[in-house]
Amino acid sequence: MTLSNCIELKAPYLIFIGDTTSPLYAKTGLGIIQWRRGLVAGQVRFEGNDLDMGVPDLTIAEAVAAGVKSIIIGVAPVGGCIGDDWVSVLVEAANAGLDVVSGLHRRLAEYPELKAAADKAGTSLIDVRVAPENLPIGTGVKRTGKRVLMVGTDCAVGKKYSALALADCLKTRGGKATFRATGQTGIMIAGQGLPIDCIIADFVSGAAEAFSPDNDPDHWDVIEGQGSLYNASYAGVSLSLLHGSQPDAIVVCHDPCRESISSCPGAKVPSVEDCMDLNLKCGSLTNPNITCVGISVNTSQMEESKRQPYLDALAAKTGLPCIDPILNGCDAIADRLDII
Amino acid sequence: MTLSNCIELKAPYLIFIGDTTSPLYAKTGLGIIQWRRGLVAGQVRFEGNDLDMGVPDLTIAEAVAAGVKSIIIGVAPVGGCIGDDWVSVLVEAANAGLDVVSGLHRRLAEYPELKAAADKAGTSLIDVRVAPENLPIGTGVKRTGKRVLMVGTDCAVGKKYSALALADCLKTRGGKATFRATGQTGIMIAGQGLPIDCIIADFVSGAAEAFSPDNDPDHWDVIEGQGSLYNASYAGVSLSLLHGSQPDAIVVCHDPCRESISSCPGAKVPSVEDCMDLNLKCGSLTNPNITCVGISVNTSQMEESKRQPYLDALAAKTGLPCIDPILNGCDAIADRLDII
Repeated sequence: MTLSNCIELKAPYLIFIGDTTSPLYAKTGLGIIQWRRGLVAGQVRFEGNDLDMGVPDLTIAEAVAAGVKSIIIGVAPVGGCIGDDWVSVLVEAANAGLDVVSGLHRRLAEYPELKAAADKAGTSLIDVRVAPENLPIGTGVKRTGKRVLMVGTDCAVGKKYSALALADCLKTRGGKATFRATGQTGIMIAGQGLPIDCIIADFVSGAAEAFSPDNDPDHWDVIEGQGSLYNASYAGVSLSLLHGSQPDAIVVCHDPCRESISSCPGAKVPSVEDCMDLNLKCGSLTNPNITCVGISVNTSQMEESKRQPYLDALAAKTGLPCIDPILNGCDAIADRLDII
Repeated sequence: MTLSNCIELKAPYLIFIGDTTSPLYAKTGLGIIQWRRGLVAGQVRFEGNDLDMGVPDLTIAEAVAAGVKSIIIGVAPVGGCIGDDWVSVLVEAANAGLDVVSGLHRRLAEYPELKAAADKAGTSLIDVRVAPENLPIGTGVKRTGKRVLMVGTDCAVGKKYSALALADCLKTRGGKATFRATGQTGIMIAGQGLPIDCIIADFVSGAAEAFSPDNDPDHWDVIEGQGSLYNASYAGVSLSLLHGSQPDAIVVCHDPCRESISSCPGAKVPSVEDCMDLNLKCGSLTNPNITCVGISVNTSQMEESKRQPYLDALAAKTGLPCIDPILNGCDAIADRLDII
């Protein structure tokens, strides 16, 4: 198994946000800068845009001079299409030899001027929402190296953040670790990965196997999860990722202020314990030694005074490290991984 | 929810097998004739082909005169491509106003002569391996009518056969029932359905919701399953189908002579009880009243004298009707459905 059919981005990056003034819509760009500041040379924003992501403003020419290899559209997909003023900047970048990277619904090659520019300059148009071809069928065959998968009580409860924080924590402690991205924003941050939610259902477990290949015995792949076994819209995706990842360890990610499942009217968010139990039961199919090493809680919506008491109570109930990565860091979970 | 974006085939059919002489490769055609004899006007096979499916040999002209609406390639996908001699028959059929239906990997429209003929005659080229567009995301919202889903201890253990036999049994007893196809051969037999295994992972549960829509309170959708929660290659597909189907009842399908999971080297086939328990546990997410109404066993590979004793022992152990639909029919399972 190889990573040959993963998406791969070339650094350093120029982050393009155009006239996007909302930090929420610019979360991809902000995420890349937060987690991969060293790979970002600068930003491109239109005149009068006050949203400053804290990196130098560069023209395309300045970016080229600074050695930039890719321009990344740092805006989360909303409408899916982009305006002419955006396209003209991307065309200029392609003409100047930069790869263009997008997470938008509409493919970059569907903009004829952009396609022509990229063809002429020999640069790549990379749509991170498009799955690679020739993905294999999953086999369940055991791989070398170790894997920890983020699982969630619902979608969007902090799996990506937890995985990034845990991977950084392991590396800071001197361990070998790689963040493995499974969603668009994660791929932009990691510079590689597989957009699991764009893959034909039959190939998801095989894709998950391919993108965390054989590795050193003491290396951890820290895998961003997707969906939740308790979210009826996406649980099949979560299960395929669980089986294909063959995790030695899971971290349950949870938002205590979420009451109902995001995409399923009337469906309740499960308890952390139920979520853990079902993931361990299902995950044992491809890794009988699977274990839960901790709970990562997004407490940002709780009153400040209630955050640590909540985590302490959950730790007492489950007997597991319960952290908010922003409040506590991930050392308590990393300690558990060290002894696997 | 509507069935508007399902595949739909127009009867009567002409089944085309060309020079295919193996009943195994012609299983699609044979299946259509076995289960939908009334919809089949005839067969087209090349001169010298001794494989007779038991329906009249017709030329395209004779088929048109007999009112045939579709020519179906009755051969299971093997290489994926077809030869010039096959294409010329299909072109003749399209020219004569027939829809052309295929389960092959390569799309019919990729054969230029065939596409031109269909465009000119205004007929359809229907690839049953191609998923419809604009599928919804699953919501878990409850639908009216009742549903029974075939689940399996592995792939290819008799789910399609069991669903077809059970739907026929319910109708013979005067009930309202519809076989819902989820795979290519099933779609060919049913004349409609969704090729679940060709759908982007995020949309599988939504597709399953869409293709068994609201119905009369006493109507049963009898849903062909896919894969197995215990097959690490395809379990995510099975889970999406389970959640989207919201089954009131499941039937566990099993092949007692299968020792290891088909696509996963070294993985053991689970017990019928474990398979039932996990499906009931996961299925309760979208239907808390889910129950198991029986076990359908493919005993064809067992010694004849051991078949009924095996079924009796399994019934004693599980307390459920255990049948081989070929040996026993499906009445014992239908009896259970009648009281739900």
